[in-house]
Amino acid sequence: MTFVQRLGAAAGHIERRLTELLAECGPEKGERLGAAMRHALLDGGKRFRPFLVIESGGLFGLEAPAVLDAAAAFECVHCYSLVHDDLPSMDDDDTRRGRPTVHRAFDEWTAILAGDALLTLAFEIVARPQTHADPAVRTELARILAHAAGGRGMVLGQMLDLEAEKRGEPQQLTAEHVRRLQGLKTGALIAACCEAGAVLAHASDEERAALKRYGEGLGLAFQIADDLLDAEGDAAVMGKAAGKDSAAGKATLVSLIGIVEARARLTEAVGRAARELNRFGARATPLIEAAQFTASRGY
Amino acid sequence: MTFVQRLGAAAGHIERRLTELLAECGPEKGERLGAAMRHALLDGGKRFRPFLVIESGGLFGLEAPAVLDAAAAFECVHCYSLVHDDLPSMDDDDTRRGRPTVHRAFDEWTAILAGDALLTLAFEIVARPQTHADPAVRTELARILAHAAGGRGMVLGQMLDLEAEKRGEPQQLTAEHVRRLQGLKTGALIAACCEAGAVLAHASDEERAALKRYGEGLGLAFQIADDLLDAEGDAAVMGKAAGKDSAAGKATLVSLIGIVEARARLTEAVGRAARELNRFGARATPLIEAAQFTASRGY
Repeated sequence: MTFVQRLGAAAGHIERRLTELLAECGPEKGERLGAAMRHALLDGGKRFRPFLVIESGGLFGLEAPAVLDAAAAFECVHCYSLVHDDLPSMDDDDTRRGRPTVHRAFDEWTAILAGDALLTLAFEIVARPQTHADPAVRTELARILAHAAGGRGMVLGQMLDLEAEKRGEPQQLTAEHVRRLQGLKTGALIAACCEAGAVLAHASDEERAALKRYGEGLGLAFQIADDLLDAEGDAAVMGKAAGKDSAAGKATLVSLIGIVEARARLTEAVGRAARELNRFGARATPLIEAAQFTASRGY
Repeated sequence: MTFVQRLGAAAGHIERRLTELLAECGPEKGERLGAAMRHALLDGGKRFRPFLVIESGGLFGLEAPAVLDAAAAFECVHCYSLVHDDLPSMDDDDTRRGRPTVHRAFDEWTAILAGDALLTLAFEIVARPQTHADPAVRTELARILAHAAGGRGMVLGQMLDLEAEKRGEPQQLTAEHVRRLQGLKTGALIAACCEAGAVLAHASDEERAALKRYGEGLGLAFQIADDLLDAEGDAAVMGKAAGKDSAAGKATLVSLIGIVEARARLTEAVGRAARELNRFGARATPLIEAAQFTASRGY
């Protein structure tokens, strides 16, 4: 199986499980809130974050069914963040992956509430006994998910990004500031996905720390690739208009250090991420390929 | 100590602990996100929900310090819900408790993100080992908190409330529909606060169920009292303009069944709530007083 096939197969598993979990824990059929949550969650995304949870668990011999609910919870958090980021008062996006955003398909207040409910659902899923037999694992998953997603993680990253943009001064940011901002906005959740596989498997502290560092490198590569795609990519690959981020005045690394230097940092980040996985031998191949794939495609 | 003194003392404990938890787990000093979260969270509220967690735990001999972090987490969820409910696309409120709402003191996107971060913080607090030594307790707290707050609980209640209001048809709602809506929007979290005390104390399933039923009765009383205050109360007691809810076209029970019948139902709800606590004897006095106080003041 090629990497792309493997990613696609995982996405299929996740899509089905998300559908089931929404039915089990989400609003009852016929509720408008449930329809908005489904619109946000079941959009045929690549499911890269849950893939990382699955593959990180796989490093320790866990099969997909044993980690699927935890993986789904991380995807709920990712999807909630997209719904809120797209809102009129934030990025004001009308489409995502070729479909209307939630506030366009429904309305603004429904989008805010659907995002709130998806974030809350993530923690309900993680806390359910079905997710893992060991309550210590479930509570630790909830803790790292909350930490990565919250006011010292993803939400702070979005805040810093918007603050710079609304003040109209991304040009005045340093590359270091952009890196911190992107690390919070995107990297923290990606690193937590990788760490989650180790938590689910009762891995050692050293293994867990290595996976987290891998995830941090991967998150960095992800963002640099995204900036490069924004600068040079075509809209079909990205699912959004090329040049949109820099046109919107968003802070991008490429605008600060140039394409050549950004490419060099991308290669370095992928190499550093991959080296963290040396200790796991051949079983780490899918995760190493994930880093290479991220770099080549700008996932 | 009178009930009001007891409530005030608990509010003081909670206020201090919320301040500490924001410093420990929230954005670092100087971040605008942290300032918005503090504005939302440290507003001198009555802290009725954390009081219920503390007193429910107290039924089983737990001292306040043993339940304070869990109580604080429930207050974070309550405060996040107020921030989002106040947003321009929802209730569009400019003031709360005599201060500007978060989106007025800051701006709309900051208010959305501060709410998101407070909701996430609640789960981080619950999941931290500091909150309870037993991970099974922490994960169960996270589960009941998420269930009460999410798409089958509080968020769904807010959605139904706004749907009726935006369609301009609250008059067409039945009293049963209003009761369901209010039970979801307000009652679910209040009941979960009461249940949380039992979870923290490793109480029996029967004790836990009794506390949850007490909380459901209390939540109902809370809402009827609120509707009565809206219909007849003065702004100073409520902290918002009297008649505001019915003027906004909000569904209120009083408008459907009248003041006399609403008063009768209020008395009945308080009585039913109090009877659930018979098994706990004299230790339940503060919770029985809480129900009576709710009825008399319209918390």
